[in-house]
Amino acid sequence: MAQKPGLAKGTRDFLPEQARKRKYIFRVIEEEFILAGYQPLETPAMENLSTLTGKYGDEGDKLLFRILNSGEFLKDLSEDQRMNLSASEMSVLICEKGLRYDLTVPMARAVVMNRHLISFPFKRYQIQPVWRADRPQRGRYREFYQCDADVIGSDSLLYEAELMLIYLKVFNRLGIPVKVLYNHRKILEGLALQAGREDLFVPMTIALDKLDKIGNDGVIEELTKAGFTRDKALDLLKRIGEGSMNSFQENLVMSKGIDELNKIWSFISNHPLSAGGLQFSPSLARGLSYYTGTIFEVVPTSVSMGSLGGGGRYDNLTGVFGMEGTSGVGISFGADRIYDVMEELGLFPDELNKPLTLLFLCLDESSQAYAFDLCCSLRDEGIAADVYPEHGKLKKQWKYAEDIRASYTIVIGEDERHKGSFQLKNQSTGMSTECNRSELMMTLKH
Amino acid sequence: MAQKPGLAKGTRDFLPEQARKRKYIFRVIEEEFILAGYQPLETPAMENLSTLTGKYGDEGDKLLFRILNSGEFLKDLSEDQRMNLSASEMSVLICEKGLRYDLTVPMARAVVMNRHLISFPFKRYQIQPVWRADRPQRGRYREFYQCDADVIGSDSLLYEAELMLIYLKVFNRLGIPVKVLYNHRKILEGLALQAGREDLFVPMTIALDKLDKIGNDGVIEELTKAGFTRDKALDLLKRIGEGSMNSFQENLVMSKGIDELNKIWSFISNHPLSAGGLQFSPSLARGLSYYTGTIFEVVPTSVSMGSLGGGGRYDNLTGVFGMEGTSGVGISFGADRIYDVMEELGLFPDELNKPLTLLFLCLDESSQAYAFDLCCSLRDEGIAADVYPEHGKLKKQWKYAEDIRASYTIVIGEDERHKGSFQLKNQSTGMSTECNRSELMMTLKH
Repeated sequence: MAQKPGLAKGTRDFLPEQARKRKYIFRVIEEEFILAGYQPLETPAMENLSTLTGKYGDEGDKLLFRILNSGEFLKDLSEDQRMNLSASEMSVLICEKGLRYDLTVPMARAVVMNRHLISFPFKRYQIQPVWRADRPQRGRYREFYQCDADVIGSDSLLYEAELMLIYLKVFNRLGIPVKVLYNHRKILEGLALQAGREDLFVPMTIALDKLDKIGNDGVIEELTKAGFTRDKALDLLKRIGEGSMNSFQENLVMSKGIDELNKIWSFISNHPLSAGGLQFSPSLARGLSYYTGTIFEVVPTSVSMGSLGGGGRYDNLTGVFGMEGTSGVGISFGADRIYDVMEELGLFPDELNKPLTLLFLCLDESSQAYAFDLCCSLRDEGIAADVYPEHGKLKKQWKYAEDIRASYTIVIGEDERHKGSFQLKNQSTGMSTECNRSELMMTLKH
Repeated sequence: MAQKPGLAKGTRDFLPEQARKRKYIFRVIEEEFILAGYQPLETPAMENLSTLTGKYGDEGDKLLFRILNSGEFLKDLSEDQRMNLSASEMSVLICEKGLRYDLTVPMARAVVMNRHLISFPFKRYQIQPVWRADRPQRGRYREFYQCDADVIGSDSLLYEAELMLIYLKVFNRLGIPVKVLYNHRKILEGLALQAGREDLFVPMTIALDKLDKIGNDGVIEELTKAGFTRDKALDLLKRIGEGSMNSFQENLVMSKGIDELNKIWSFISNHPLSAGGLQFSPSLARGLSYYTGTIFEVVPTSVSMGSLGGGGRYDNLTGVFGMEGTSGVGISFGADRIYDVMEELGLFPDELNKPLTLLFLCLDESSQAYAFDLCCSLRDEGIAADVYPEHGKLKKQWKYAEDIRASYTIVIGEDERHKGSFQLKNQSTGMSTECNRSELMMTLKH
């Protein structure tokens, strides 16, 4: 009995058209990373669970995919353990490995393990899938790609500037209008201090981070629930709503943040993309369980969609693996959302969907062999060409040419073989041009 | 306490140099696939176990990595099940998903699921990792890449010809001298028939497949153990050792195989790479549990190393998922071995190790900002450039330039800023050239 095939929940196939579009996004991102001196790193999908657990909070630990130990994985369990362990206790005993949850922790592990082979600052990029046992929903998958660039081992603010420019350049090349929002942890710390509630820093940032989703009233409600008086909450939001960057100077903590942002801005203020693309955003409060300095987020300006990427500076990422005092800063691109925005705005180049330059259609068996020989010569010249594998039935062959969106076609029969000249048909215009073998090469190589 | 970081057994990190070299191999393979009209497909790493089990034999099933169900995976087990199930019985109840074992079965699943969106013949390539819970050893990993091209839905022998040429072209571009060995299942069937032992076809092919490893005597021993008389075994090996292709005509089965191989040969005999690169090999007997027609294998001729790839024609791959009567043919490249051969023969292009064109070294803070601005302009022109993030201490900066193998360096200080002209130092020759901003662009863009 044949089985009905299905995908694992929350996973996807990428058929050729989608795969080409995704590769295009990755290629543009990768090219900009390389131009800015970032080097590729690849880490395995499977990591020891000891590397992964405890790095993403309790919620993250629950979302790790665990890989069952091979072979007799039950053999070291006592009767008591078999009967009475909870699922999470049992999983620790029968699973040693898990699928990576992000690219940052595996990078930290790899950097620490290879610290003597690496020159610091280490600028690395990594474009690989990650896995999370989240409840799948529209736009949220259990297997998805992350595209990260990080600098490890320097606290220079040049890197913040450079990473912001990379965002602007990538989205400019992709054609997506965006703003890169930026803020600094110290500004948020300064705001809590000014409100006299440094103790409420964490709930304050969690509330602010939701401003886009729940609006002013929602945030005020969350802030008061967390312990701010209503007046302080109103003040805070007012302060955030009206402030130009240099107005955040009420205390030294804030000033330190502003000084860093000013310095970063000075490095890139000349760049043609900076003026319209960067925006100070004092309510930006993402990732504050790990970001210790500047924070970034990229939002599209012409469609309503969440962030297309984010990043920031973090200190001591590698400390947990035994390498202390190493500052890092990095950004990440959200490939799935970028894909969705590009589809919505019709931004993918047409050529992506025309991978085959020429398809030969053949009237008889000898023409097929003839066409294949010619086709191989074209391929040797770097022209993507193919031969339909059945002769006769031209209607079927034309349909295939349309289905695979060949740019040109040539029908080969006895006449064409004997004359050595062909009608090269442009599939979009319908126009044909007569040409011989060498003219064909010239035309298609352009 | 910091934990000591480690890799999961049988997995690897790829540091920048390795990662670039691997990407180079994948890129060459991918380019040739695309030129020949193959389209990209990507499938998820995680598949339902129902898709994977039973497809690779009992041995294969044992080598599947199984993913523990999320959450309360024990809750549906009875007390009796908890106490008494064997590990393999238990694994069925607590794991629904596994990591893909190859790219062929996931492709078949994806093709069947998307049959109404796909134009046949479907020519797809796929370059993705696979996972096997094998005992790790030198050259054998638990996570490794496969690079496959397959044609689904046509029995045209043009595709055998095309795939053999792809092998020759890829290895020619990589600079690895190889032979593409080929044989046909029907020739092996004909040999068993001729020996009067069609019943021993499977053990015969298993023995022949080991010829390279265990030699003539070893194969004869295996054949006699399997049930061939010593005389028949000797005959068989003699027959295989001496035969030119057209001499295999003793029976109709063989002739059918030879006819197909002759036809394939006729399609590519004109190609400049064919003459020296293709070799009929009647002892080639790999993958006969699934190959039903032509069989290929690529072996390097200048180093002693196993096969660098293999493939063949298989019928009815998609039958198990409910799509009957679909013939396919495909090839696979062994990226890890290709990498090892290229390292051994020193074949990787030098440029792969010089990803950064220019590094700026700076004498003071203002020079750093100046250099960064110039650096960003160079990047905008497509030149990979970077600025060392600390000023002063030139010795440390020079060392970094050497470590990351920058092709050129420029030292920027007050003088350079004021004059707007720089000494561009070629790091391999040690020679410096004076140039201004626009000359710098011109020189590096070449």
